[in-house]
Amino acid sequence: MRDTAPVLTGVGTSNFGKQDYSAEELVVQAVTEALEAAHVAATDLDAIYLGTVFSHPGTAHRALRAAGITGVPIVTVENACASGTLAMHLGAESVRQGVHETVLAVGVEKMTNWIKGPIPPDPYDIDALSGLILPGLYAMSASRYQHLYGVTPEDLAWISVKNHRNAIDNPRAQYRGEYTIDEVLESKPIADPLTILQCSPISDGAGAAVIQARGVTSADTSRVEILASVLESGEWWPSLDRADDRVWNAELIARTTERVLRESQVSVDEVDVVEVHDAFTIGEIITIEAMGLCPTGEGAAFSREGHTSRGGRLPVNPSGGLLSRGHPLGATGLAQLAELYWQLTGQAGQRQVPGAQTALLETMGGSVSGLSGHGCVVAALRTL
Amino acid sequence: MRDTAPVLTGVGTSNFGKQDYSAEELVVQAVTEALEAAHVAATDLDAIYLGTVFSHPGTAHRALRAAGITGVPIVTVENACASGTLAMHLGAESVRQGVHETVLAVGVEKMTNWIKGPIPPDPYDIDALSGLILPGLYAMSASRYQHLYGVTPEDLAWISVKNHRNAIDNPRAQYRGEYTIDEVLESKPIADPLTILQCSPISDGAGAAVIQARGVTSADTSRVEILASVLESGEWWPSLDRADDRVWNAELIARTTERVLRESQVSVDEVDVVEVHDAFTIGEIITIEAMGLCPTGEGAAFSREGHTSRGGRLPVNPSGGLLSRGHPLGATGLAQLAELYWQLTGQAGQRQVPGAQTALLETMGGSVSGLSGHGCVVAALRTL
Repeated sequence: MRDTAPVLTGVGTSNFGKQDYSAEELVVQAVTEALEAAHVAATDLDAIYLGTVFSHPGTAHRALRAAGITGVPIVTVENACASGTLAMHLGAESVRQGVHETVLAVGVEKMTNWIKGPIPPDPYDIDALSGLILPGLYAMSASRYQHLYGVTPEDLAWISVKNHRNAIDNPRAQYRGEYTIDEVLESKPIADPLTILQCSPISDGAGAAVIQARGVTSADTSRVEILASVLESGEWWPSLDRADDRVWNAELIARTTERVLRESQVSVDEVDVVEVHDAFTIGEIITIEAMGLCPTGEGAAFSREGHTSRGGRLPVNPSGGLLSRGHPLGATGLAQLAELYWQLTGQAGQRQVPGAQTALLETMGGSVSGLSGHGCVVAALRTL
Repeated sequence: MRDTAPVLTGVGTSNFGKQDYSAEELVVQAVTEALEAAHVAATDLDAIYLGTVFSHPGTAHRALRAAGITGVPIVTVENACASGTLAMHLGAESVRQGVHETVLAVGVEKMTNWIKGPIPPDPYDIDALSGLILPGLYAMSASRYQHLYGVTPEDLAWISVKNHRNAIDNPRAQYRGEYTIDEVLESKPIADPLTILQCSPISDGAGAAVIQARGVTSADTSRVEILASVLESGEWWPSLDRADDRVWNAELIARTTERVLRESQVSVDEVDVVEVHDAFTIGEIITIEAMGLCPTGEGAAFSREGHTSRGGRLPVNPSGGLLSRGHPLGATGLAQLAELYWQLTGQAGQRQVPGAQTALLETMGGSVSGLSGHGCVVAALRTL
């Protein structure tokens, strides 16, 4: 019987940032690189899963046609910031179930031509219209977290310093600059205690990955197995009467990660590198705690002690993360996946985490108003 | 081993048409009816697949929360007019593959508050901006079809007369009126030869269906098996140098249907009732031909002879179709599915096709500009 374990055989991305390319052109860049890396032709594809949030209907088909792909079934999905990660998940599961042998996962977002500042809220979302948009929600989480654990503004700012430093070695990143803690804290206030250098930017970009059944892959290509991937959805937030629900979506991240670890039989001690959803600095701290990578309440100290830096024992967001690589919503999950593929196959260049073999990926799809619903996707990856 | 054949155990819809309800409220109406019909609780659901085209991110989560559903993974998909049908397809396949036991497929669109006239084209779609929007594309198909087969304007108009007549017995339909062929032809011109009564309207609405693995269903509920469902994507159109590519997407519809018939082992002779994508009158004629329900070039005569009328030997769109029930994009596939479920379980009231046991469903997802890409979904259904 064919081995249907889903395996990454190639990835590609555009550059990230404000740029003149259309969504279609960005997809062509990412898809062309991924297909070439995987030694796969457009005619080999059984299906395409494409994640995007704000693209108009037809963008997927138009973009893929421009990449030389027609006549292949296309499933377009939306899951807020985790749209691309959901595309990866559905593609990987279709391979695992034996439905497809070779699929392409794609993510794309073109934002800089119409969004200035925060993403505009849904006109039907009364929570968002009352001010509970994502910067505000993350800021509330940050304040609560600081209160509970005695964490300082400098601790929060450190995440930004670290991720911007990582991005210096990422030629595709949107922001590549060395910042001090003071510079982060003195940058423009967005939602107290978060300053603009603690918020991920509005970006344009695309990412793509070829996923194939292990049985059809060749050892001649660089291969990374998707050991497990899981989509879970969350409850409403905030439930301030629940002491354990103190920060945005910690429970959901924990629940999703636990399932991935169980299904993949990976222990957190084995993890060499992670890419997580640092849409805001506080997000990275809460997420690595919720994933069980360090004890609850110790994420800030764990980071500031250097354990999550590139030379540390568990590098987090070596790509620069959303904060510095950029955050083109639908593309982000594929950008995270591409970074981990490069890390796990020794192709990460100056950013390489030596000997990385096992990785976790996490993306949080909170909608434009963070109250509207959440779809978290987590995956475990290992060098084959 | 558990029988994982996907089975419909309940459906629900809102009314269709211009109405004051929000997308969220429409979803609540459809989902509540579907869960009650299936005797399924929100806590029984393993996953939700929701199709929509123009809803803002978060709508799915907000709507489902309003229906009492939180903490269930939600996959939101977009496939133009076949978004809801794609949600059904993905949900059914997740059950067939044994990934889930009980899923909810939902479709919704809220259009009347912001669209007047044709759906506005994507600002990046140069084909659409040059005028090749859907009414124009269907009109070109109609002209070509008339030229090839000597079909008259009256033949086209008959489809509108038939479907509006069917809708008189559908209390949820948007337009329920008796029209003559002359009245159809004398209605406002939209894109020659199509008049407004030959174009589906802008609508608000939602639909929902509970899909369960046969092994967990009870014979006490009214059950319809989804024998097969298929998503296929098309090539670019038009290729006027190909004589067989004379009308919009006929090749794609034929290819998708052939796969469904093969996988379901259903013969067209066994089909008792169909719901197809009559976004425009010409669409119904081309579609029933492409599906093999009548010979190529004879669809208009076949219809006008009464064979596709409710008392005929192969009733097409007994619900009134998109032309009369309405066409809230993301909801349409679920509305078609609901009609066929009611027909196949003897619950279609005044619209009942006596003894209907086997049905086909077809939805064409052409994007706002019909050139941008196409995702056709076809399914075969049978009373269990």
